[in-house]
Amino acid sequence: MTSAPSAAARLIAEIRFDGNGLVPCIAQQHDTGEVLMMAWMNAESVAETLSTGRVCYWSRSRQALWRKGETSGQQQRLVDLRLDCDGDTLLALVDQDGVACHTGRRNCFFRAIRDGAVTTIADPLVDPKALYGA
Amino acid sequence: MTSAPSAAARLIAEIRFDGNGLVPCIAQQHDTGEVLMMAWMNAESVAETLSTGRVCYWSRSRQALWRKGETSGQQQRLVDLRLDCDGDTLLALVDQDGVACHTGRRNCFFRAIRDGAVTTIADPLVDPKALYGA
Repeated sequence: MTSAPSAAARLIAEIRFDGNGLVPCIAQQHDTGEVLMMAWMNAESVAETLSTGRVCYWSRSRQALWRKGETSGQQQRLVDLRLDCDGDTLLALVDQDGVACHTGRRNCFFRAIRDGAVTTIADPLVDPKALYGA
Repeated sequence: MTSAPSAAARLIAEIRFDGNGLVPCIAQQHDTGEVLMMAWMNAESVAETLSTGRVCYWSRSRQALWRKGETSGQQQRLVDLRLDCDGDTLLALVDQDGVACHTGRRNCFFRAIRDGAVTTIADPLVDPKALYGA
């Protein structure tokens, strides 16, 4: 007799990972609605995120699990993980410690067109050197 | 003498499109913060979105420009288009007419784990047949 698949396994079975075994995951601050960042997950990082309650991505540049905040301390606690209609995008509602962006800004989406120019519309809240060392 | 590049051209020059010439774009309702959907854009759809003020994606399944709402009437008016820190994700703040999801739900992220099962957590607000015909 085999045991029933876990809820995590059932969710993972519904995800349509891309050809690299990855799915984009949007991180949104659960209470304010602020969209913090977008990163990628593989099946292992989805499973770890659900089991630990701490968001874990897959770093495409490092080709390794990326436990958000493992270096910077700026962790994301998972509040809810949602899958979209066609199964190819995740939305993680999170509680973000400090700042989500490696530049020290609260969120990563700080470039937009203003007065005909691509402009930085948010300032860092933290010096990145304080997050990652000089 | 050549004219200066447009703001749209300058933003597009900052985007790091993937190997297929695409970039993921998150659509967020500008006033409530609700994350509505995620879809893909190519350079042409970014340019059209900025020039018309109406969100235009690239349909990977149809391999064609996808003017959101062209069939369903559920258009997205662009409020602001933001690029993330490493240039590989867009966030579109939009004003969504009606519903964003082809299932008739307000947003696409309606599956989540509840009581150990993958559960539908939102109901359609509109019958999809009313949007797309029977």
